[in-house]
Amino acid sequence: MELEQMGALAKEASRKLVKLSKPIKNACLLSIASNLVEEADMIIEANQKDLDNGKLNNMPQAMLDRLSLTRKRIEAIAEGVRQVAALEDPVGEVVSMKERPNGLLIGSKRVPLGVIGMIYESRPNVTIDAFSLCFKTGNAVILRGGSDAIHSNIALVDIIKTSLIENHVTPNAVFLLEDTSRETATKMMQMNEYIDVLIPRGGAGLIQSVVKNATVPVIETGTGNCHVYIDESADVDMAVSIVKNAKLQRLGVCNACESLVVHSGIASKVMPAILELFKENECEIRGDDLAQAFDEKILPATEEDFAQEFLDKIISVKIVDSITEAIAHINHYSTGHSEAIVTSNYENAQRFLNEIDSAAVYVNASTRFTDGFEFGFGAEIGISTQKLHARGPMGLEALTTNKYIIYGNGQVRP
Amino acid sequence: MELEQMGALAKEASRKLVKLSKPIKNACLLSIASNLVEEADMIIEANQKDLDNGKLNNMPQAMLDRLSLTRKRIEAIAEGVRQVAALEDPVGEVVSMKERPNGLLIGSKRVPLGVIGMIYESRPNVTIDAFSLCFKTGNAVILRGGSDAIHSNIALVDIIKTSLIENHVTPNAVFLLEDTSRETATKMMQMNEYIDVLIPRGGAGLIQSVVKNATVPVIETGTGNCHVYIDESADVDMAVSIVKNAKLQRLGVCNACESLVVHSGIASKVMPAILELFKENECEIRGDDLAQAFDEKILPATEEDFAQEFLDKIISVKIVDSITEAIAHINHYSTGHSEAIVTSNYENAQRFLNEIDSAAVYVNASTRFTDGFEFGFGAEIGISTQKLHARGPMGLEALTTNKYIIYGNGQVRP
Repeated sequence: MELEQMGALAKEASRKLVKLSKPIKNACLLSIASNLVEEADMIIEANQKDLDNGKLNNMPQAMLDRLSLTRKRIEAIAEGVRQVAALEDPVGEVVSMKERPNGLLIGSKRVPLGVIGMIYESRPNVTIDAFSLCFKTGNAVILRGGSDAIHSNIALVDIIKTSLIENHVTPNAVFLLEDTSRETATKMMQMNEYIDVLIPRGGAGLIQSVVKNATVPVIETGTGNCHVYIDESADVDMAVSIVKNAKLQRLGVCNACESLVVHSGIASKVMPAILELFKENECEIRGDDLAQAFDEKILPATEEDFAQEFLDKIISVKIVDSITEAIAHINHYSTGHSEAIVTSNYENAQRFLNEIDSAAVYVNASTRFTDGFEFGFGAEIGISTQKLHARGPMGLEALTTNKYIIYGNGQVRP
Repeated sequence: MELEQMGALAKEASRKLVKLSKPIKNACLLSIASNLVEEADMIIEANQKDLDNGKLNNMPQAMLDRLSLTRKRIEAIAEGVRQVAALEDPVGEVVSMKERPNGLLIGSKRVPLGVIGMIYESRPNVTIDAFSLCFKTGNAVILRGGSDAIHSNIALVDIIKTSLIENHVTPNAVFLLEDTSRETATKMMQMNEYIDVLIPRGGAGLIQSVVKNATVPVIETGTGNCHVYIDESADVDMAVSIVKNAKLQRLGVCNACESLVVHSGIASKVMPAILELFKENECEIRGDDLAQAFDEKILPATEEDFAQEFLDKIISVKIVDSITEAIAHINHYSTGHSEAIVTSNYENAQRFLNEIDSAAVYVNASTRFTDGFEFGFGAEIGISTQKLHARGPMGLEALTTNKYIIYGNGQVRP
């Protein structure tokens, strides 16, 4: 099917989805969950084709692992869909309604965005996750996954469509681009007539390509050059424990710490324990001149190192003489995702919260908590690092917009 | 000054503006208001240069009038700034704060967007309006007005900068692009490093050019192909009064009605009065076959006519056999701005409110009310016709984003 036609059908479907009752939407999601488990063999067979191609193309083991679907993983995906079904549906809520002096009653109602375009990389579970969150909020979705996972994605979308039909709901609520060429992706990013919002999920390269090429409004997600700043007054044990968690608990995630900033007044107390921690965990350190003085094995940090999301056992370290310098350094190099201060000083805690320009700013806690589930949203479609529409973890509400509904009795403007 | 340098300085200024107290921000606005009035002669002199150039370039009289600044108009602009000073400042409000089971206290705080880029056409009052709304909400702003108003804009921005300096606030809170070339505008639209949001204001051409060329997130404003639908059960007098107000009160505005949809069951009762109204007001009618049957002077409506924002004494008319057909027609041709139904039928009122996919949906009232002041926001930076971030009239809140502030006591992620 032509992309243009998919867009038109998805738009048409979105008009129907806005009218679907909450019980019917949830029934569809539960059907999908059970059909996923029932058809696990078929999914695994399709997935095997992708794995075989991956091996032929010398895909690294870590990526093959991310791509692979086992019965257990399929059950976990199905369980995720059931959890989305159980969440409260934000659509339809009238968040405010006020009477104006002329008698007009003006309300703001939460409504679906319409058609959402998702552009993402290999992990096939995103196909089901993204669909279920978009569908729960009454949106149609056009999925453009990577070519690496195309057979898995075709199988998964097939199950979604079958489940929708079983529930007498239009299967045009979801489309998958089987043509995974760059040209078609670019065309999709410019389908302003049919797509209301694009959400890219994946590496920095993918996201920047969408930001650069899209004319459809984009929610930029992801890249996290997150900082932990150890203030002069920090509790040393707490500082080490937070740095350990933020940097080392999971390396490849966007809320991991990539850069450590330490006040010079506490450096001699806290650096030895941190150096030992990194040595034990084989984490490479790239520091400024002052940091290098603590250990001859610390490599000099370049400008690029301070700006980089390593997603690996590498961290940059900067020693500062004041919280003012720390804040300026962080605001300069950060990608605006998550930053933490470890401090016992009330005023510095407040300054950090006020002056750091990032989606999530922490006092005395690990940056690893920036996550829709940890924030209590029950689900997450991504973490926005832009300031428009949604900032930080995006749950179901981020997939809705508002509509003003106005009740009059003949008012005209004077 | 180079655009790149302006961007860097504006970003730096935005870090300071976020810390400005509300009284200081308001003091600056009041200084600007009094300096505008005091320097009225200087502004009028600069404005005269623009008017002279306009005449040389055969600018139409209506545009010369929009461009012209008189003492009275300058006083009105200053009064607008005083009104913005008097509005409640949304910045700093913590809109929710919840404790998670692990003891983390997670709050969502309203903060400035950062640096806003405004791209707009001739009317120089936008320079002051846009600055005052952006500054009130703690944002720095880079203004790119039209070349037609460049001398007026330079004079106005000069007054803003002087007033800021008088109040010991950085004059880098505002920049004006004196180079009004297209190339520089395009470069500005792609300064993702320094500009957080672009707001274009002007005709459809300008807005589409920004949507197409920008990589910075855009809030699309403006174009309104607004519909009034007269349902079978409508009160005829109310219908005529609403059509008159919506179409004829002001022609060149985005919330004016451009297309009339009439149920066939009431057409014979309501069309004669409407045809008379349009005849009296010399408003041209372009209708479908059924509409043309009512008067031989009605021209046939083309596909383009139904899709057009005339901003003139022209209206398209479509006769439908059901509310379902009316809703489908409107959702197909509308630009998603404002639509109204005139009806006495409860169920049809609810269906229209639910199923019409526009920023503002009215029952028994004129579309002309879609306006920040009429909605009670006290100010308006534009009317968004997109679904991300803000939809409909945008007041001060639309110039803010949220930041998650998280208070911990050493929490790490398990």
